[in-house]
Amino acid sequence: MNTYFQPVALNKAYRLLNHGPTVLVSASHAGVDNVMAAAWACALDFDPPKLTVVLDKSAHTRQLVEGSGWLVIQLPTVAQARLTHQVGTQSLADQPDKLAHSGVQLFRVEGYPAPLVSDCSAWLMCRVIEEPHNQTTYDLFIAEVVAAWADTRVFQAGHWHFEQADPALRSLHYVAGGHFYAIGEPVVIDGQAKE
Amino acid sequence: MNTYFQPVALNKAYRLLNHGPTVLVSASHAGVDNVMAAAWACALDFDPPKLTVVLDKSAHTRQLVEGSGWLVIQLPTVAQARLTHQVGTQSLADQPDKLAHSGVQLFRVEGYPAPLVSDCSAWLMCRVIEEPHNQTTYDLFIAEVVAAWADTRVFQAGHWHFEQADPALRSLHYVAGGHFYAIGEPVVIDGQAKE
Repeated sequence: MNTYFQPVALNKAYRLLNHGPTVLVSASHAGVDNVMAAAWACALDFDPPKLTVVLDKSAHTRQLVEGSGWLVIQLPTVAQARLTHQVGTQSLADQPDKLAHSGVQLFRVEGYPAPLVSDCSAWLMCRVIEEPHNQTTYDLFIAEVVAAWADTRVFQAGHWHFEQADPALRSLHYVAGGHFYAIGEPVVIDGQAKE
Repeated sequence: MNTYFQPVALNKAYRLLNHGPTVLVSASHAGVDNVMAAAWACALDFDPPKLTVVLDKSAHTRQLVEGSGWLVIQLPTVAQARLTHQVGTQSLADQPDKLAHSGVQLFRVEGYPAPLVSDCSAWLMCRVIEEPHNQTTYDLFIAEVVAAWADTRVFQAGHWHFEQADPALRSLHYVAGGHFYAIGEPVVIDGQAKE
């Protein structure tokens, strides 16, 4: 990765998800890598940071998450909208070259088993906390974030700075039917100092 | 409410949350109403629609949710950023006139026990699905959406149309420290017809 790829302190990692972006979920097991899109990922706790993500039983990536116990949640950018839609609508079961076909490039960080998607704006490396009832009944997975990174062009000192960067780096927020929004302009409450 | 307040079909209700807005949570029990802000609310299922929301043990609204089994998740607008920040940082325990002080006006829809916050852009009336382990261990509540409404100026025919309305009606996406983003511009994948 490039020099913009930098660690985020774990007690600030929830801020990478707090504004509700659509994410990519990547995982690897027994030599198979896969990536899916998910609109239903959410912060769950601050420190240690935890998150929830909904992984449908039909998703091949879910098998890799269950097999390995690890996943990466990462934020695709506006420049990756087509990639995001493609990995969200194609299945590895039907299309074995899904990742290449969608233009997904993976990389790895030493010491962690799950692959990361290149050119995203932030990455959360997560270990699954086994909760069989939630997983079976609701397709709901809970995971602890054990490491996080962000692209310093858009996230620095614990805050997003989308308005100071190329609009192609903004986060995506999916509605339905190929219809996303990009995150917009800052709204700051007077008299509030950023922490 | 005004004529813009219209029902949303339950099988489209997940789209009100899909783009990751910060929400207001309202509830009522034993004659006490309260409202809090939450960044950690997320769709969980399509039809019947379900959602998750994290309610900290210190939140007075949580007691009302637990006591009544009902809550409303609603989307504040850019025009309500200060209100949202105030109900998110003040507690009814410390400030008994919190709602009046924050400028919150409530209304009710006949047949439903929980109050709704005026001037939001969408509302999801929810019945809690009791999951004591999640509630105790993670402060995580699961609820079924039994009715939904939206402001037709920004949500019609199953889709948001923020770009066609007053920017003051856009959804809020909280980061931290009084720092929100508004939702931005649409990103549409070529060749995808809206459903």
